[in-house]
Amino acid sequence: MSEEDKARKPAPMRSVDPAALAVLEHAAQDGVLTAWDRYQAQQPQCGFGSQGICCRICTQGPCRLNFRKEAQSKGVCGATAYTIVARNVARMIGGGTACHSDHGRHVAHTLLAAAEGKTADYAVKDPAKLRAVARRIGLEVEGKDDKALAREVALAALEDFGRHDDTPLTWLMTTITEGRKAKFHNCDILPTAIDRAVVENMHRTAMGMDNDPVDIIFGGLKTALADFAGMHLSTDLSDILFGTPVPIVSEANLGVIDPAKVNIACHGHNPTLSEQVVAAARALDSEAKAAGATGINVVGICCTGNELLMRQGMPLATNAAAQELVILTGALDAMIADVQCIMPSVKTLSECFHTRIITTSPIAKIPGSYHFDFQEATAMETAKAMVRLAVEAFKLRQGRPARVPADKHKVIAGFSTEAMLKLLSGLNPDRPIRALNDAVLSGQLKGVCLFAGCNNAKLTHDLEHLTIARKLAAEDVFLLATGCAAGAFAKAGLMGPAAVDAYAGPGLKRFIKDMEAAAGTAHGLPLVFHMGSCVDNTRAADFCKEMADDLRVDVPKVPFVASAPENMHEKAVSIGSWCVAMGLPVHVGVNPYLEGSPLIMGIATQIAHDVYGGYFMFEPDPDKAAARLLDALKYRTWKLGVHHAAAAKFGTSLAAGY
Amino acid sequence: MSEEDKARKPAPMRSVDPAALAVLEHAAQDGVLTAWDRYQAQQPQCGFGSQGICCRICTQGPCRLNFRKEAQSKGVCGATAYTIVARNVARMIGGGTACHSDHGRHVAHTLLAAAEGKTADYAVKDPAKLRAVARRIGLEVEGKDDKALAREVALAALEDFGRHDDTPLTWLMTTITEGRKAKFHNCDILPTAIDRAVVENMHRTAMGMDNDPVDIIFGGLKTALADFAGMHLSTDLSDILFGTPVPIVSEANLGVIDPAKVNIACHGHNPTLSEQVVAAARALDSEAKAAGATGINVVGICCTGNELLMRQGMPLATNAAAQELVILTGALDAMIADVQCIMPSVKTLSECFHTRIITTSPIAKIPGSYHFDFQEATAMETAKAMVRLAVEAFKLRQGRPARVPADKHKVIAGFSTEAMLKLLSGLNPDRPIRALNDAVLSGQLKGVCLFAGCNNAKLTHDLEHLTIARKLAAEDVFLLATGCAAGAFAKAGLMGPAAVDAYAGPGLKRFIKDMEAAAGTAHGLPLVFHMGSCVDNTRAADFCKEMADDLRVDVPKVPFVASAPENMHEKAVSIGSWCVAMGLPVHVGVNPYLEGSPLIMGIATQIAHDVYGGYFMFEPDPDKAAARLLDALKYRTWKLGVHHAAAAKFGTSLAAGY
Repeated sequence: MSEEDKARKPAPMRSVDPAALAVLEHAAQDGVLTAWDRYQAQQPQCGFGSQGICCRICTQGPCRLNFRKEAQSKGVCGATAYTIVARNVARMIGGGTACHSDHGRHVAHTLLAAAEGKTADYAVKDPAKLRAVARRIGLEVEGKDDKALAREVALAALEDFGRHDDTPLTWLMTTITEGRKAKFHNCDILPTAIDRAVVENMHRTAMGMDNDPVDIIFGGLKTALADFAGMHLSTDLSDILFGTPVPIVSEANLGVIDPAKVNIACHGHNPTLSEQVVAAARALDSEAKAAGATGINVVGICCTGNELLMRQGMPLATNAAAQELVILTGALDAMIADVQCIMPSVKTLSECFHTRIITTSPIAKIPGSYHFDFQEATAMETAKAMVRLAVEAFKLRQGRPARVPADKHKVIAGFSTEAMLKLLSGLNPDRPIRALNDAVLSGQLKGVCLFAGCNNAKLTHDLEHLTIARKLAAEDVFLLATGCAAGAFAKAGLMGPAAVDAYAGPGLKRFIKDMEAAAGTAHGLPLVFHMGSCVDNTRAADFCKEMADDLRVDVPKVPFVASAPENMHEKAVSIGSWCVAMGLPVHVGVNPYLEGSPLIMGIATQIAHDVYGGYFMFEPDPDKAAARLLDALKYRTWKLGVHHAAAAKFGTSLAAGY
Repeated sequence: MSEEDKARKPAPMRSVDPAALAVLEHAAQDGVLTAWDRYQAQQPQCGFGSQGICCRICTQGPCRLNFRKEAQSKGVCGATAYTIVARNVARMIGGGTACHSDHGRHVAHTLLAAAEGKTADYAVKDPAKLRAVARRIGLEVEGKDDKALAREVALAALEDFGRHDDTPLTWLMTTITEGRKAKFHNCDILPTAIDRAVVENMHRTAMGMDNDPVDIIFGGLKTALADFAGMHLSTDLSDILFGTPVPIVSEANLGVIDPAKVNIACHGHNPTLSEQVVAAARALDSEAKAAGATGINVVGICCTGNELLMRQGMPLATNAAAQELVILTGALDAMIADVQCIMPSVKTLSECFHTRIITTSPIAKIPGSYHFDFQEATAMETAKAMVRLAVEAFKLRQGRPARVPADKHKVIAGFSTEAMLKLLSGLNPDRPIRALNDAVLSGQLKGVCLFAGCNNAKLTHDLEHLTIARKLAAEDVFLLATGCAAGAFAKAGLMGPAAVDAYAGPGLKRFIKDMEAAAGTAHGLPLVFHMGSCVDNTRAADFCKEMADDLRVDVPKVPFVASAPENMHEKAVSIGSWCVAMGLPVHVGVNPYLEGSPLIMGIATQIAHDVYGGYFMFEPDPDKAAARLLDALKYRTWKLGVHHAAAAKFGTSLAAGY
């Protein structure tokens, strides 16, 4: 056994998703490589990079720090571990902010085009949300029609990208607690323009710039607040254009693929594309039938899947990690992608099948794929052309074997903040959020946990999400989810009503059943409430703000935690960072290259807490993570005067680690 | 001898600068570590990172590609070498663009503050330049006073950072040839806002985004054009505030430090700080004398040094690589830094002496240093406080040994584009640039070479710059320089008149002497013309545009090349990239992590040429680099119809490599 083999980590169990495992079994038989194989081939991964103490920011590098040798304990320029680690992670925050906010900018331009009559394919679908957003950001609403108001809202959003005076971001200052405004002002981390914040962050982290680790990290938090604003406006404007989600029933997991239909997977993030594809598919149903199919089946992958699930009830095929497996079923006719989290490997795998890979964004192309230049003015025309390509591919598939696993679960999704408050209004019509706060203050619920983030090949697919959620549910924690975390729950049945009986502790079960009874829902309620795609995490922040304002405390006192158990993308780093700035305890399953500097670890886990009230908990073990999240909630409820009988159940001190 | 020792590169000769070598000798005797030692301690540097085939963009990494193993020949997501290499270099371009443009934004805000009367410490110093810039960008000039016009120009500059419609950048569209405008439009790489371009570039290069290598690299070029605009407006606005440089005499190298005086080194980039320090030093001369000094000696390091040299005639102590050595002379009382290229090690070294390290930027702090919050409104007050700190430090120095090398050379600097054209107008009053073009078309000159960029510990300090320049001078190439390249020439005497006699070929010598005679300069002219700091490289681009317009060709046909022989910073990557997009052959001495993808190397060296007319030449050997630069010039002059007798002198085919 070679040294390299010894250093290689044993392969973790690949997934706990039976559908994924079934397709992976086929892939192994066929000798097809997937992300899991490529991850294993990367073992052992570089220790310097893993710890964040590798710097390639200037071309005197790569510099790799070795603390046993004085001359090698700093980079060529003299940068220490804390500087290098801080710069690397700050640039990850910048990357995440760029992704979310550029997505938001796209939606803003689409809303502007619709408002200015430059496209017939988009219009204001939710005038109530339009008016609510306009009022919130301080616009005069009375006497304006939808188009005029939508134009003003879109321009206000675009203003948040490019403002050059000292006015802080509109989409930050109108969405957070008074306490947070004062905190961010006092800490001098209020961004004035989203794009400028990303640029300043790049500048701050360049060679020969900031070496103060607290400064670099707090600069990263400033960038993360720009991320928050970009995400929030993205969600707001998407709701205006496509409707604010309301509870809706659908299904999830690979079993939603129907070999008898033309199967189209929308993959990526931006509803401006996927909404058009769904409409085009409905319009071209007869063409599919003429081709011998029983219809067109639009399914979702990753966060476009969440967008379609939330608003259109389209089934979710799978989350990000398993995107290759959708192709490997052999029954996918086209994958239509827009932006972010699209593995380049999908093209390679599609070559084993008839599947068409279609890209649509000028900044996310894959060589050899079909590329359609998707523009607002010609959106429906383009969407139809893509759907027709899928119908043609369907014809080629006939006679070839499909290996679609049967696994799928009922999902109840669509829980926007507005939908959540409407549900709660059944329990307390005057102050809906009070119903939840009362349950927390009475000890019936231990608080709220938001699950967010991705999948990561370093961990068993979905295992962390499911383990932590089941443990917290049993302990009466109210559960929200977004992004690929939500995908994990949807696929495993935790977003169906049956899961409430199966996993909820008595307090949580009673709370959900009471809410269900008061709302009179026909479809029941889920164990985990789906709040949308990863760009929608500010829905949860709004929900948390409602709790804070009702409790008359700032966010750091609200029993609300966040967990990204299988974080992978830079976007997860920026979301986690603003959650911390907002005052939330944030669990993260995969360390974003911080361990090379105990000082930076200390800033993330302790100084952040002292300054902002939020902090990171890095913990790959799901049992320990659940315990720490629960401890964090119990500490906050205890400070609010709640005394849980089972307070010592997890055997850790309430104050441990804070 | 261990394997590691065998892989270690032999230490290159550290410098060819005798002053630097003398101080390094002292450092070695004292056991003090400098960048040269830390570079040597990093050997061998990581092969994956050096080739650009290491990816840490998501937290499934680090992924390192190994082409001998199929599963390891791609990252976990399936990204190939060309994608990973392209993303890494595109992000370097983004980093460089952020640095230059944030610097430009700072100057724009200062001009705006001056125009709006919010500071008494800044004012329009060059109304002619103000009017020239205003006219060029299409503003109405007549009937407006300086303040009103300055406000409009500043706001137009800020508009270039945050515009949200499709209008291309003002500072790009008003400064380039018609041919370039059409080319960039056709290639869809016209940026509309500087900050947005950086954000789009970050988004494009995130996990799961663009995998088309040409697309990623051309996206990088779009970002680089934003860099061009940010640099150009920075230079324009600095000239308006502080004066457009005119020829000026000074000295360079460590010998300019005077132990009898209070020595203050301004280090960094932005004249908004250093101009105030110079003024404060002049105002506080009596305080220095009262402390026992013969006066206050403000010297420059890096590009702040170039800014002060160009406009104030302050001596240049050294360029970036040797910044630590200024402290090691023992005679430096304070180092006042703003942004970029400030090695963190200066603080560590200062602790061996009495030297005060002073930081002034909120995004460039060094723990343990003196930090002054430098603001426009209180600039002079703050500058005086900093100078007084230096005077106090001077008192502590008394009785301690100073080890200042005697080396210094006469420098003639201050060659803005305007100053160059004024000089040439002596030869041709009607069309000044025609004098240069005539010399090129007649074969007297072989063309123009701009030297730019940094120092890099991978190469012998200054050696590349000096070797290439002497070879090209001997071959009658007209030489311009900026940044730390200019610093190398200044320190070695190549910016004094004596160098013309020593190194210029007959054609170049006659051209410079003719220009000197026609202009009637008292001080003589240099061999290499100093055009400013690294942010001033667009002065050279303007000069090249003059040549192109006069020759009635686009830039790709102008006998004009650029060389960054010792490039180090991300800024050099972005400058090199826009030079290529502009149509220039660009030599680079240190490969910016591209070698892991022959495809990306091909795009940089060949496809770029086919599309834009400019291309990269990566060549660490200065003799070969000189030959390739000369070949590139000869090829272009040959295409213009010039037949050099010595065309085959370097023994390479004219068309080789294009």
